[in-house]
Amino acid sequence: MQPWRIARITDPALRTALHASVESERLATADALGKRREEFMKLKVEGMLECGELLVMALMDGRERHIFGRRTLPEMDLASVACAIQNMWLAARAEGLGMGWVSLFDVDTVRTLLHMPEGARPVAILCLGHVDQFNSEPMLETERWASRMPLADCVFENRWPEDDKASE
Amino acid sequence: MQPWRIARITDPALRTALHASVESERLATADALGKRREEFMKLKVEGMLECGELLVMALMDGRERHIFGRRTLPEMDLASVACAIQNMWLAARAEGLGMGWVSLFDVDTVRTLLHMPEGARPVAILCLGHVDQFNSEPMLETERWASRMPLADCVFENRWPEDDKASE
Repeated sequence: MQPWRIARITDPALRTALHASVESERLATADALGKRREEFMKLKVEGMLECGELLVMALMDGRERHIFGRRTLPEMDLASVACAIQNMWLAARAEGLGMGWVSLFDVDTVRTLLHMPEGARPVAILCLGHVDQFNSEPMLETERWASRMPLADCVFENRWPEDDKASE
Repeated sequence: MQPWRIARITDPALRTALHASVESERLATADALGKRREEFMKLKVEGMLECGELLVMALMDGRERHIFGRRTLPEMDLASVACAIQNMWLAARAEGLGMGWVSLFDVDTVRTLLHMPEGARPVAILCLGHVDQFNSEPMLETERWASRMPLADCVFENRWPEDDKASE
């Protein structure tokens, strides 16, 4: 299906406008987080202005024509794009580059900025480039935003446990 | 967020039931494909009965509590699961194993078979194991179901082209 479309952002004015839309959503997310607002505002969630390459990844227009493997699971096109991004992520890391996936944005704003057709849907702003360092653990763990779940809470045998701890 | 849940299917009766539900959706997809029905029916779309390990991958219950990075893009949880599956896929291949992602199933049927809570959503049945061979190109290309798009139709600069060929 190859539902992915990649826009490479080379226009500085467009980069600035995309950054402004992310900053706006960052504040809206902070407000929605309630009591964790201040904690969230201290996190570095993107490097859009500094990164070497800025890419917008989107789902293509006209996806409804593809039904093979997604008649009952239409979201498999997004799964496909996510796999492509994960491949880019690993390839970047293998080259010594860092990548960040920003999903703090308003879909319609980004769609308009890039003149996307109505059926297309932006799903990622990717910040790619050289970084000062690679963290030894996920930044959200270091900053004590969240901690990793035990594997036993994610892997079951045959059926869901009655007491799904991770869902509580 | 770690929204992924993995069920390892070790019960032969459950494997058989899952296979039956996929077979049912395979026929429904064939019918929906209209004039390509016969061509589709010749494709080998899964190896559920033969594979060494059968896994069901699902989105967890209670996802609405997580809003960081998905207030405007709630589907980022699926993107996360897809990245995890892609990592499994590459890891399997590095070990000389094959993996297949089956998405030909009815969500409610699989949910019921595995006793999942209402908020959970199965997104993949994964067939993992030793294979006779690795294809040199995607099977759907070999079988002339589809052909790879030129890169220029997927990668743009700054904005969508007026004539988005791939969407026509």
